[in-house]
Amino acid sequence: MDKTPGIRFQNGSATIVVWAPRAKSVALHLVKHNSQLSLAAKKRGYWELETTQIQPGDLYKVVIDEQFFPDVASVAQPEGVHGPSQALDLAHFERTGTAWENPALDKYIIYELHTGTYSPEGTFDGIIGKLDHLEELGITAIELMPVAQFPGGRNWGYDGVFPYAVQTSYGGATGLMRLVDACHARGLAIILDVVYNHLGPEGNYFNNYGPYFTDKYKTPWGSAVNFDDAGCDGVRHYVVENALMWFRDFGVDALRLDAAHAIKDFSPVHILRELSQQVLALTKQTGRLYHLLAEVDLNDTRFIDPLDKCGYGLNAQWIDEFHHALRVSAGGETSGYYADFSGITDLAKSYRDAYVYDGVYSAQRQKTFGTKADHRPGGQFVVFSQNHDQVGNRMLGERSTELFSFEMQKLMAGAVLIAPYLPLLFMGEEFSARSPFLYFIDHSDPKLVEAVRKGRSEEFKAFKTKSEVPDPKDKNTFDRSKLPWNDYHLSTGKAMFNYYKALIALRKQLPALAIPDRGSVRVEVLADKNILLLQRGKLQQVCAVLNFSREIQAVELPAG
Amino acid sequence: MDKTPGIRFQNGSATIVVWAPRAKSVALHLVKHNSQLSLAAKKRGYWELETTQIQPGDLYKVVIDEQFFPDVASVAQPEGVHGPSQALDLAHFERTGTAWENPALDKYIIYELHTGTYSPEGTFDGIIGKLDHLEELGITAIELMPVAQFPGGRNWGYDGVFPYAVQTSYGGATGLMRLVDACHARGLAIILDVVYNHLGPEGNYFNNYGPYFTDKYKTPWGSAVNFDDAGCDGVRHYVVENALMWFRDFGVDALRLDAAHAIKDFSPVHILRELSQQVLALTKQTGRLYHLLAEVDLNDTRFIDPLDKCGYGLNAQWIDEFHHALRVSAGGETSGYYADFSGITDLAKSYRDAYVYDGVYSAQRQKTFGTKADHRPGGQFVVFSQNHDQVGNRMLGERSTELFSFEMQKLMAGAVLIAPYLPLLFMGEEFSARSPFLYFIDHSDPKLVEAVRKGRSEEFKAFKTKSEVPDPKDKNTFDRSKLPWNDYHLSTGKAMFNYYKALIALRKQLPALAIPDRGSVRVEVLADKNILLLQRGKLQQVCAVLNFSREIQAVELPAG
Repeated sequence: MDKTPGIRFQNGSATIVVWAPRAKSVALHLVKHNSQLSLAAKKRGYWELETTQIQPGDLYKVVIDEQFFPDVASVAQPEGVHGPSQALDLAHFERTGTAWENPALDKYIIYELHTGTYSPEGTFDGIIGKLDHLEELGITAIELMPVAQFPGGRNWGYDGVFPYAVQTSYGGATGLMRLVDACHARGLAIILDVVYNHLGPEGNYFNNYGPYFTDKYKTPWGSAVNFDDAGCDGVRHYVVENALMWFRDFGVDALRLDAAHAIKDFSPVHILRELSQQVLALTKQTGRLYHLLAEVDLNDTRFIDPLDKCGYGLNAQWIDEFHHALRVSAGGETSGYYADFSGITDLAKSYRDAYVYDGVYSAQRQKTFGTKADHRPGGQFVVFSQNHDQVGNRMLGERSTELFSFEMQKLMAGAVLIAPYLPLLFMGEEFSARSPFLYFIDHSDPKLVEAVRKGRSEEFKAFKTKSEVPDPKDKNTFDRSKLPWNDYHLSTGKAMFNYYKALIALRKQLPALAIPDRGSVRVEVLADKNILLLQRGKLQQVCAVLNFSREIQAVELPAG
Repeated sequence: MDKTPGIRFQNGSATIVVWAPRAKSVALHLVKHNSQLSLAAKKRGYWELETTQIQPGDLYKVVIDEQFFPDVASVAQPEGVHGPSQALDLAHFERTGTAWENPALDKYIIYELHTGTYSPEGTFDGIIGKLDHLEELGITAIELMPVAQFPGGRNWGYDGVFPYAVQTSYGGATGLMRLVDACHARGLAIILDVVYNHLGPEGNYFNNYGPYFTDKYKTPWGSAVNFDDAGCDGVRHYVVENALMWFRDFGVDALRLDAAHAIKDFSPVHILRELSQQVLALTKQTGRLYHLLAEVDLNDTRFIDPLDKCGYGLNAQWIDEFHHALRVSAGGETSGYYADFSGITDLAKSYRDAYVYDGVYSAQRQKTFGTKADHRPGGQFVVFSQNHDQVGNRMLGERSTELFSFEMQKLMAGAVLIAPYLPLLFMGEEFSARSPFLYFIDHSDPKLVEAVRKGRSEEFKAFKTKSEVPDPKDKNTFDRSKLPWNDYHLSTGKAMFNYYKALIALRKQLPALAIPDRGSVRVEVLADKNILLLQRGKLQQVCAVLNFSREIQAVELPAG
């Protein structure tokens, strides 16, 4: 089985592939003719049809044992998650055809953004309107929070239920392709956040198709996606083909795999390893470079160890621990997951060793946690001082702007941009945007909405005395999270922007900073002064003084 | 923390170690004085005391927050699983001190037995009484089904709840030590079956101590043992120290790890890998060789790949697939898990490749299953034509004696003993014992007994029309499973014994058979004749003709 699930066009005819291993009959219901096309049963639960009766743009539903469902592998859901699916010919969109070459990951300076709140329009075209801004800032890659079709018009994206379909309200598949082309024309790479560890609760028709889930493992989002239980072959194929589609058909440069630690798989070949192998095979076919990044909360290099060292072969991973250590150093909260971090000593450790918990006991996790990561190059780690999760999972969604002084925001930006790792910014931090980034949803199922409200409310029980938990379903919660571009024109906004711009330029220009080379990193902690000295570079050396003390202090620079 | 949990004696004083991370107070209640000794809280949930007030032989309970429990790390439960624990000085038993050297695993010809049913006495001493028989047979290692204290007096051993305590009715710690010494004096190695994937339901006081279980993973026996969730450090330590105890204090030569596939651990270092590392460290200390074997149902060489090849470093694994292919070849059932096996073609594959499912689709498991095992030597695989599970998990517990002709039993024995793997026999097969090996328990909790009866009854619903499911709790079920030594004196018994004896002698004498060398294996299938030709050996060659057809047939031997 190497056919992509869903509908694909070639030479005027459509190939329809549905995986429904328990079905007795499978057909396609064509909305325009109110007619049905029967699919033929193939091996291992696949159903297929090649036909000229379906054209790009046609609406359809899949009929399994006489019940009608949207196609879980559809590439468009123009009427939302419960509506009919739409056939599109992905290979025949007009592309601008830039001679784009995806840079090595070492060159990535990443800017994470949420399509719905980034621009006033809340669309891919809205992002295109901001590319002047991003080009001037100097970042080299944008990372889109998930764009797979989710219920309603407002969502972070992690409730997506059609992993092959691009959110219609964002501009759908064509909109995303226009954005990819526009980015490439400006020399910007594009990273897409994809969610393979769970699927959203509303519009989730997967159980009608096959064993996409298993209760062998428990995840924070319920049943785990089935990567190793009975029927897993079809699920693995579905996920691998999805990843390949973004690279091959959309021209995306990299994927960011959400919560890779929650991708449970005890097969001989872990699904992430298989994914790496398949992506390498695609590179061989196309001659193009693709990167796989992952959010991983395990401090376990097996995710980023190369394939020939028994690793999963992912190219890089996020390290939240750098963030935690940095925020504690900057005087932020020390409760919750921050409790494990003690400030600049841990920040120094993260500069040195990437992981703070690298085989030592974590009181927060109540176990010995992590492995050494000495052997992995700096370009395999992504660091940040804030991101959508760290901001948005606060009850009031405050950015650093609201929590730290202007000077401290600058220090934190510096700490990230001089790190021997890949820096990531969260949209708006470059001009000290003051808006919150709140948690918002737009599900239509009232019970589910109530459950989300309740969950959110319970999560922040301890804090609620001071203020109300913003209602995730309220459109106002979404509107308040829209990036306030006016802040850019404030004196603080402009000043911060110029500071970020200068820092990014410095990172690109100075050989000592440009390459995430861990070998030349030397860190010194002046504990009594609350100052950290970071030296980088071999021939040319750079020494950064990170003064977290809020006071002006004299420091003797190390020799050399 | 490197102290063994429980009570250990040194220089006349006792060190008491209890892991109870949630406790507010921990004490030892001494039965003889009706007095309490308080333990001091140490790091990470450990409680300790060094005292001269407790002597070997003393009975005690552990008092956690004023509640009394048996010690989950006790080395003796003389009054059963609910009674007080007993302190013993393991290091000071009289040992016969044979100059024993554990042979390389390649030399192992294994004989699996169940202590309670092997001899009329049902004890370790009862086994000692049969060592003449075993020595004459020629096997080189006995494998004891689990001996950790279980509820009541009759159990296969997989309901054990005191992994450090030797079943009192078998003869306890001293009895086991006597058996080890007696085996070694005869040149026999001793393998102990240990269960680290679950713990029994009755007499299970672990939840009163700490987070020994996690609901992150589902196993056939309920919650998984906690090897990677909060609090796992204490559990890992408990398991590793237990394994080391059998080697160090009891002189056991090898452990057989039950259902290693159900040991769920996603830590950077899998607990089985850690176990291998610790056992190697013990070898460095003592200069003695120890082997780790595992029952694994995953066809994944990661369990037996060496430590420096990212494996868990176990020395060998059982391969049930050889058994399944062999039984189907012999004309046994073809339903249930046998449905995946097609007879001599699969048997040939197992001779050649060890795993039958090595990356191919399994209809039974409904997924692509397994990896190639070409790179692992034959001495890493254990094969058999029956074992306690394959016999005992049948409704009526029939051995091959009841299911196959005398000649077919001989053919199956031959198939196992000429394999380029480690052969394993199940007690009694060497004299065609006719007794069943039934499933029996002796729990005292009536609800639990009823649940076991019901479970057993449901399991065999489809078969029950013909006969009744034997009652697991009925003492008669146990008594019927006792090995009928009288059968040995029947003409069939004696004939079969001589046949086994000759085969084993042949395996030891012929260089082509003595070493489980896969490199020299050549297999040919004569499908129309239902004959398999197996050639082994390089300089000296052996060719075995396995005729599964029930007819006398002429065969041309391959050249060479």
